[in-house]
Amino acid sequence: MMNEKIKVAVLGATGSVGQKFVELLTDHPWFELHEVAASERSAGKLYKDATNWIMSSRLNENYANLTVKECKANLESKIVFSGMDASVAGEIETEFANAGYFVISNARNHRYDRDVPLLIPEVNYDHLKLVKTQPYKGGIVTNPNCSTIGLVLALKPLYDAFGIRDVNVVTLQAVSGGGYPGISSMDILDNAIPFIGGEEAKMEKEPLKILGELVENQIDEAEVKLSAQCNRIAVIDGHLECVQVNLKNKASIGEVKKAFGEFKSEPQRLGLPSAPVSPIVYFEEDKYPQPKIHRNEGNGMTVSVGRLREDVHFDYKFVVLSHNTVRGAAGGTILVAELMKAQGYFDEVLT
Amino acid sequence: MMNEKIKVAVLGATGSVGQKFVELLTDHPWFELHEVAASERSAGKLYKDATNWIMSSRLNENYANLTVKECKANLESKIVFSGMDASVAGEIETEFANAGYFVISNARNHRYDRDVPLLIPEVNYDHLKLVKTQPYKGGIVTNPNCSTIGLVLALKPLYDAFGIRDVNVVTLQAVSGGGYPGISSMDILDNAIPFIGGEEAKMEKEPLKILGELVENQIDEAEVKLSAQCNRIAVIDGHLECVQVNLKNKASIGEVKKAFGEFKSEPQRLGLPSAPVSPIVYFEEDKYPQPKIHRNEGNGMTVSVGRLREDVHFDYKFVVLSHNTVRGAAGGTILVAELMKAQGYFDEVLT
Amino acid sequence: MMNEKIKVAVLGATGSVGQKFVELLTDHPWFELHEVAASERSAGKLYKDATNWIMSSRLNENYANLTVKECKANLESKIVFSGMDASVAGEIETEFANAGYFVISNARNHRYDRDVPLLIPEVNYDHLKLVKTQPYKGGIVTNPNCSTIGLVLALKPLYDAFGIRDVNVVTLQAVSGGGYPGISSMDILDNAIPFIGGEEAKMEKEPLKILGELVENQIDEAEVKLSAQCNRIAVIDGHLECVQVNLKNKASIGEVKKAFGEFKSEPQRLGLPSAPVSPIVYFEEDKYPQPKIHRNEGNGMTVSVGRLREDVHFDYKFVVLSHNTVRGAAGGTILVAELMKAQGYFDEVLT
Amino acid sequence: MMNEKIKVAVLGATGSVGQKFVELLTDHPWFELHEVAASERSAGKLYKDATNWIMSSRLNENYANLTVKECKANLESKIVFSGMDASVAGEIETEFANAGYFVISNARNHRYDRDVPLLIPEVNYDHLKLVKTQPYKGGIVTNPNCSTIGLVLALKPLYDAFGIRDVNVVTLQAVSGGGYPGISSMDILDNAIPFIGGEEAKMEKEPLKILGELVENQIDEAEVKLSAQCNRIAVIDGHLECVQVNLKNKASIGEVKKAFGEFKSEPQRLGLPSAPVSPIVYFEEDKYPQPKIHRNEGNGMTVSVGRLREDVHFDYKFVVLSHNTVRGAAGGTILVAELMKAQGYFDEVLT
Repeated sequence: MMNEKIKVAVLGATGSVGQKFVELLTDHPWFELHEVAASERSAGKLYKDATNWIMSSRLNENYANLTVKECKANLESKIVFSGMDASVAGEIETEFANAGYFVISNARNHRYDRDVPLLIPEVNYDHLKLVKTQPYKGGIVTNPNCSTIGLVLALKPLYDAFGIRDVNVVTLQAVSGGGYPGISSMDILDNAIPFIGGEEAKMEKEPLKILGELVENQIDEAEVKLSAQCNRIAVIDGHLECVQVNLKNKASIGEVKKAFGEFKSEPQRLGLPSAPVSPIVYFEEDKYPQPKIHRNEGNGMTVSVGRLREDVHFDYKFVVLSHNTVRGAAGGTILVAELMKAQGYFDEVLT
Repeated sequence: MMNEKIKVAVLGATGSVGQKFVELLTDHPWFELHEVAASERSAGKLYKDATNWIMSSRLNENYANLTVKECKANLESKIVFSGMDASVAGEIETEFANAGYFVISNARNHRYDRDVPLLIPEVNYDHLKLVKTQPYKGGIVTNPNCSTIGLVLALKPLYDAFGIRDVNVVTLQAVSGGGYPGISSMDILDNAIPFIGGEEAKMEKEPLKILGELVENQIDEAEVKLSAQCNRIAVIDGHLECVQVNLKNKASIGEVKKAFGEFKSEPQRLGLPSAPVSPIVYFEEDKYPQPKIHRNEGNGMTVSVGRLREDVHFDYKFVVLSHNTVRGAAGGTILVAELMKAQGYFDEVLT
Repeated sequence: MMNEKIKVAVLGATGSVGQKFVELLTDHPWFELHEVAASERSAGKLYKDATNWIMSSRLNENYANLTVKECKANLESKIVFSGMDASVAGEIETEFANAGYFVISNARNHRYDRDVPLLIPEVNYDHLKLVKTQPYKGGIVTNPNCSTIGLVLALKPLYDAFGIRDVNVVTLQAVSGGGYPGISSMDILDNAIPFIGGEEAKMEKEPLKILGELVENQIDEAEVKLSAQCNRIAVIDGHLECVQVNLKNKASIGEVKKAFGEFKSEPQRLGLPSAPVSPIVYFEEDKYPQPKIHRNEGNGMTVSVGRLREDVHFDYKFVVLSHNTVRGAAGGTILVAELMKAQGYFDEVLT
Repeated sequence: MMNEKIKVAVLGATGSVGQKFVELLTDHPWFELHEVAASERSAGKLYKDATNWIMSSRLNENYANLTVKECKANLESKIVFSGMDASVAGEIETEFANAGYFVISNARNHRYDRDVPLLIPEVNYDHLKLVKTQPYKGGIVTNPNCSTIGLVLALKPLYDAFGIRDVNVVTLQAVSGGGYPGISSMDILDNAIPFIGGEEAKMEKEPLKILGELVENQIDEAEVKLSAQCNRIAVIDGHLECVQVNLKNKASIGEVKKAFGEFKSEPQRLGLPSAPVSPIVYFEEDKYPQPKIHRNEGNGMTVSVGRLREDVHFDYKFVVLSHNTVRGAAGGTILVAELMKAQGYFDEVLT
């Protein structure tokens, strides 16, 4: 019985993640983009004038003419998506939460706060309960790093079915993961860069919290040994990851493929608007998945997996692909908000 | 006392490896490109007319006007470089060797013949002796696969100093490794392909023979466990490899870097014309090595290494870059020929 | 009152244009892909096995399991789309037309037959009448070259409103225009090629027929002087064209922009399923249109125009962008078929 | 009798043009890089620490350890190359000239000063005399815009032999023309941009001064009508230009090719170190010139021309390629300095 859409705001709306929020919220069945906020420099301008729009679909006319507000806790929308830069996101998000807003953030600042969920709805939806232990009048929920999300989503069915002891991952990451303008064309045309600042540490740490267990309002981190090597390549969207795993319990190739293919979780059961029918799709063709061909599976929310084979150092190796700015950023964050809405987290604040 | 250059021929001269031979033999101090040979279809034409020249330096005028011969064992040059396609190379190379020619080949056909060296001059120069056990009037020596060469060259100083038990490698390979025309632009622009047919098997097998020990005219394969995952990316030249190793004996980071930096071998001692002063160069900058910036180190014959760090699954991880069509193909093959010349292998056939 | 969809076949279905037909016919409201045909080599196989599917959306399951037929005039579908190679298309298309089929072709063979329309539905829909003068039991209609279509669509409103005397065009064309595999990645990464075989001649000749007038069953060619220079660049889809024109009658910048913006034609009036609401969209931003951002305007059927400004040699210069494999090939051909259906051309053959 | 090299400094040494100066001055036979200067932020640091080195050859060890100075007119070197940003170059260059330095600048600020030569040594070497009319104790000479240089060099032999009335040019320009970091990878991968701010105006104006005649210490601008359309494409180095010209006097194709091929000028006669043997090379192959293959002709100082053919709107059309950061920037500027040295302009200041 949803008669009216829920008003939402985007903080950091002029940046690349902010723009993706704006694009994905267009025609959203539950949420209505009511306000856009950004730095002082942009505040007061029309959104279309303050923004160098780089999405490949056109900017919605109505949003184009919104006046950009400042990122201050006096917005009308009680649900705010944060695409702010990490240099400012931490304090502002706290300010909003204190003032009674629900902040769903793509910034890294609060990811390791003990009472803040680091959420992938299909993986650790139950961690949402942590929000109730927060000291804020509102609340803060965070989204993991883009390269972490694809990896952990692909690991989840194996973790549940067989247990995972070790993970080794080498990434080939798209340039859009570096924000805009990000990587210079002079650095990446006819080139690859075997280093992304801070990325390997995030990939080795975040999965432990995400796969952890919520026990008495605390997260017991998962006991998985992870090693990550991160590379930047000349692809626009879509992170490709070469993964090796040791399972706790033996599983045949057929059993592993079955676990990938049959995986469904809470967002699918709840029929959330942004939830893909299949969070994971497995491809039998040797040459798949590929960024250009598969990044848009499930409107960019499905993770593609392929090339499962036995390994000499680990039990198995396989390839994972996910859309880094949709599933890995704004799309994933919106799915978190949908989960919160469906579970009644917004009820109080919206009455 | 080299008064005259040694006449050499290139078999398969119109292909991409063949062209690289022609380019690199221009102004070679020891060898003179005397004949070019190719398929029946090209034979009889001028080289410039039979070839779609794709090298980035201009084709030498003299070579341009050579008449292409057939790949038959009636050439005047006794030293022949083979850049032929694997579909025909096997038999033709045998025919030449039987007829008294020395064939140094980039094709894969004879790589696993028990009496044929699979040679990287800095790594297993002593395997050359195998040639003397061959039944041929002449001889055959082979060059490993392009992605193997960079890897094994980087491993060699560690293998000698500390021993190696395990190797795990994920590659980001350039399109020129696929020959010409090879990968379609439609397949690789804004894309990456997590599969290269046959490549992983070669990378897991070839190093065992190369690092093996020559005992009584047989090669005892090295006991190293290898796992390879191979990806194609939108880079023209230069294979990047993310490597993890377990050493047999403990070594500090400083000791490993020292081993990389101080590595020299027979080609350097002999001062072979194509031998780089340093076969390996180590970069301290996090973001190095990169294909565009470092593939031409040592005229494309030096392997660049960087990002050495401790790992949680293996002792160390690091990044290797090598020029796949120079060190990894034609340049490496020419270095083999220089080694053979310096060690007197050609003496008999040249008198 | 369309109770049943019209059965159609695709000739040359395994090629890149053929695949685009298959992709675009998925869920078409009027046409149902009933048969796929290709060369003898593919005939008898399942379509999915005979085809190296390179589209970026997934192949429809039903089509995947169609058995490929030979390109012989014994198909059940009376409407056939031809994406065959020019080396075979000419004769086969004639054979089909003689046997009572309607062939709508993207091949160049019949484009200059005096009784064959070279059709862009928005531009010269009235040329369709030529079909009735054909000696065939069925008929043949052709689609122009991909770079011609975008140009002529953009010229049409100016031609109608002000007359056009001279056209000068320099193109920056996408690699998909060269078919698959087409341009090698080694030729186009970090490069541009100032030559496309035969393309300039087509661009200088085809517009004269398309813009010509149908007088007594013959086409009087338009009197326009054209010069074309064609370049290939590293873009996957979307041809960009820098155009200069001399008009017959004076027109202000405002009038020219108005002509672009208000242009509608027969397909819009008929509400054809593939007809974009606006065949042309004009962008005021200096940096627009761009291939990556605008090629999908109107589902790839809208031509984007921008940067209109006065010129010193010609009256005006401006930039045109169109999707070369949608509007410029398969999409344009399907629109032709829709026009024919709407005008009753298929009535006889479908009863 | 040059016993000692001339000490030179580079202003704006940390930027992309500045780095190219540093790279090209390595092992220069006449000049010795003695000082590097940059903004306050960099001053005081070692050059290697202040610079994000993006050249593809390694930074010379000696230069790496130079301490960066401020761009103030107290440097020891009397000859200074300016690669400063236009936002600061104007005043600083004036300050240096007033203080007795010779400034050879790649910045646009002084290009249209009536007494400042806009110099391409092969084209208008005689304009150098203007320096003697300057009010400075030292002097200022400027280099044209990168896209102008290739065009005007290619036009010069035609201008001398046949006269030129009209020029129409459409460019496909490399990303390095936009400085570093310049174009974002997200803007140019799988894309082209039909607009470069200010570029078309420069290309339409600068040639008039360069091709002008020096009469009584003033430059009479050439009377040529120019139209330019500028595009950015995904190429690292090398601007490709599609050119159309009307000549004043009739010339056959053979005569035009001869004029291109035989062109030599003052730098060749003087044997300047950076002067290419042939300033222009003409290619007969339809598909040439191409950026990747020909940008390094003559060490990047030769302009490549091809595809000369008759045109319907102009007398001829042809394609021009030049290396935008070598001939079109730092390399061209160094050639200016060599010309000045050879003609004695530095004599006074160096004693």
